Amino acid sequence: MNIIEIIDKKRRGLTHSEEEVAALVQMMESGKAHDYQISAWLMAACINGLNMDETTWLTQAFVNSGKKMDLSEAGGVVVDKHSTGGVGDKTTLALLPMLATAGVKVAKLSGRGLGFTGGTIDKLEAIPNFKTSLSGIEFVEQIQKLGMAISSQTADLAPADGKMYALRDVTATVASIPLIAASVISKKIAAGADVIVLDIKYGAGAFMGTLEEAKNLAFTCREVGKRLGKSISTVISAMNQPLGYAIGHSLEVMEIVNLLKGKGPQDLEDLCVRLGGVSLVGAGTYATLEEAETRLRQELYDGSALAKFKELVKAQKGDVAALDDFSLLPQPDRVLMLPSTEAGYIANIDALEVAKSAKMVGAGRLSKESGINLGVGVLLRKKVGDKVKMGETLVELYADDHDHREALQVLKNAFTFSPEPVTAPPLIEEVLMGDVCAKGLKISV
Amino acid sequence: MNIIEIIDKKRRGLTHSEEEVAALVQMMESGKAHDYQISAWLMAACINGLNMDETTWLTQAFVNSGKKMDLSEAGGVVVDKHSTGGVGDKTTLALLPMLATAGVKVAKLSGRGLGFTGGTIDKLEAIPNFKTSLSGIEFVEQIQKLGMAISSQTADLAPADGKMYALRDVTATVASIPLIAASVISKKIAAGADVIVLDIKYGAGAFMGTLEEAKNLAFTCREVGKRLGKSISTVISAMNQPLGYAIGHSLEVMEIVNLLKGKGPQDLEDLCVRLGGVSLVGAGTYATLEEAETRLRQELYDGSALAKFKELVKAQKGDVAALDDFSLLPQPDRVLMLPSTEAGYIANIDALEVAKSAKMVGAGRLSKESGINLGVGVLLRKKVGDKVKMGETLVELYADDHDHREALQVLKNAFTFSPEPVTAPPLIEEVLMGDVCAKGLKISV
Repeated sequence: MNIIEIIDKKRRGLTHSEEEVAALVQMMESGKAHDYQISAWLMAACINGLNMDETTWLTQAFVNSGKKMDLSEAGGVVVDKHSTGGVGDKTTLALLPMLATAGVKVAKLSGRGLGFTGGTIDKLEAIPNFKTSLSGIEFVEQIQKLGMAISSQTADLAPADGKMYALRDVTATVASIPLIAASVISKKIAAGADVIVLDIKYGAGAFMGTLEEAKNLAFTCREVGKRLGKSISTVISAMNQPLGYAIGHSLEVMEIVNLLKGKGPQDLEDLCVRLGGVSLVGAGTYATLEEAETRLRQELYDGSALAKFKELVKAQKGDVAALDDFSLLPQPDRVLMLPSTEAGYIANIDALEVAKSAKMVGAGRLSKESGINLGVGVLLRKKVGDKVKMGETLVELYADDHDHREALQVLKNAFTFSPEPVTAPPLIEEVLMGDVCAKGLKISV
Repeated sequence: MNIIEIIDKKRRGLTHSEEEVAALVQMMESGKAHDYQISAWLMAACINGLNMDETTWLTQAFVNSGKKMDLSEAGGVVVDKHSTGGVGDKTTLALLPMLATAGVKVAKLSGRGLGFTGGTIDKLEAIPNFKTSLSGIEFVEQIQKLGMAISSQTADLAPADGKMYALRDVTATVASIPLIAASVISKKIAAGADVIVLDIKYGAGAFMGTLEEAKNLAFTCREVGKRLGKSISTVISAMNQPLGYAIGHSLEVMEIVNLLKGKGPQDLEDLCVRLGGVSLVGAGTYATLEEAETRLRQELYDGSALAKFKELVKAQKGDVAALDDFSLLPQPDRVLMLPSTEAGYIANIDALEVAKSAKMVGAGRLSKESGINLGVGVLLRKKVGDKVKMGETLVELYADDHDHREALQVLKNAFTFSPEPVTAPPLIEEVLMGDVCAKGLKISV
């Protein structure tokens, strides 16, 4: 099989065979196909699409390109929750202890942040000494013992996906639902969990701009999972305004601790509870979402989830004291206040613009190699629907002592106002349950 | 301007500004844009298209990337005839002396063959000692003195096109009318002639598979030329069966000599006369195609064109004696006959298959660096419409002493037969005259 013929076929909008898809990935891996050939194919796939068969074969080829985690020693049903990425999305930090407390295992391999959204691994590093890199054995042993573990993603899971993603990033070929699905699902399959829950975000601060695209991605991921023998549950949630109030590493850790004390922002709590509920039902631990969610909210109010989070931090060598005394977390040099120049109701807070301002003050990476400032970020004081007076503080900008007038301007422009009361649009748009893993129950929600 | 934004725009099917097109080419030239980025853009342009503005800007950017030939010293109206490439297309060799005899200057920069069709420069090298590489000064001086010169294309004309073409070749992005037009026209503009005549081939042995594509390319080339101040004439001709009878270097030189003696194949003569007529009318030398063509046929029968060809060969240090004694041209080791296994009328001879067989015996290059055997090739004994008896020779295969059963099989499969008489389809499909260059006359044909 010839790489030029494979590219040409996709250019003409034809459908690949399984052998062609496998050959493409192998030739990329072996270097027989050059980057410029892979990127030409990626653009053709981006524009002309991949059907469900091709997407499944691509996913399988990615999985086959590397190792597969073996979680059989973890001792129970293992859940993996994954988000397609949003601004202020710190749900993973809460779900680890919430689910472990409720009796399922959570195995989470997570990435660092690139682009505008922060990575969970970076957020955990705001906790002094937290060890974010576990060996495979440490990872599985900790799940067995503690019911949960989180570690930075290793390059040996679905490496072909990593290689292709690096090219997509620099050739404007990220925005393709089949390519995104293959990338996400291959890593989840290679990571070995029994229950996979995807939080698919849509809106200004997400990869998927529209609800329709998000539904399309959810459908594709579920279908590819099914064809590869993995049942996948999907939750579609809005990402127009940031999730919660905090964007930035220390700030998000603080917000999570508050959430685990039952004092978190309502939207963040609702989403964590829903994702957790879907996970527990998917694992067969509870028969209905209602029962599962009741249990999970209880954990937040009775302190059991917070206690479990402290166990996680302790197990991974983090400074548990910092969870009680936030002054032990990385701090900003100063906090700048952004006053409102309008009075009325907040109609929208553009999540992408908020993320940009957070990045401008140092909370995001400029390149894969650059460092981040864990103490800085954005703390919203208002959310969509809130009434504000002229001069009232909209946002606190946690910053270093450089000039941040530009970041404040970006933040200011992120807000739009309405003279009339505004109702925030629903946070959770759609929940589709996968087949139940552990006990073979079928649940419809 | 950011290369990823430029690629993304074309991925989404949007239209570039002139600045974006220029920036793309400059970034490719400077290495700021990587090959994998250019190839992603090429695929997006291939699938989503480029409009006439974008195609014109791309052409201009290619021209601007290198030198421009200055033919002002050539002393008269200078013609450049270009073919999009076909099997057995040796018209350039005849047109040089035919047009020079008729009183216009011919400046021809030509390439070597790659793929299945032979290059004019390679064909000329079948004439012992023919010097195919002239300096810019030698080239212009010879045109001034002799009325014609041919030299191998230098890399400093439209180098950005060369770079982009090299990528297109290996990323299945050759088949794009705007990209082909920009490539062809930029080189012609940089080559500096006053009158440009394009022979656009369509059919099995051509880049353009269908007449419709050929018409589209002709329209695009004319329009881009007009916008850049160059009047371009186009001739669309069929390339289903090979042109003439000879495919291969020595064989084609022999056929040209015979043509210049008035004993050439009818189709080859007709096309040379038509292309020459269009050139002479475009140059303002004759007012009508009829007058021009009458003059050109006369040159073939009175020996003046052949005498002029000998002057060309002499001027470029070639062995003129080889034109009278063909045994001085490179010879094959042996000639294999392919007998017909059917009786009837020849319905089709697939030009691409014939070219493949010629390449198999060594008349084509396998890669840019590989050598070719100038003595070998294919000599048709029959053409479409001819009646054949069982066992009659269809083709002579000029070959070396390797095993060529496979090439003979390919040749055999190139022929299809009909029990009923067959009329060969028209060779010349469409002639569109550009504006007249020299005297400002407008001619309609």
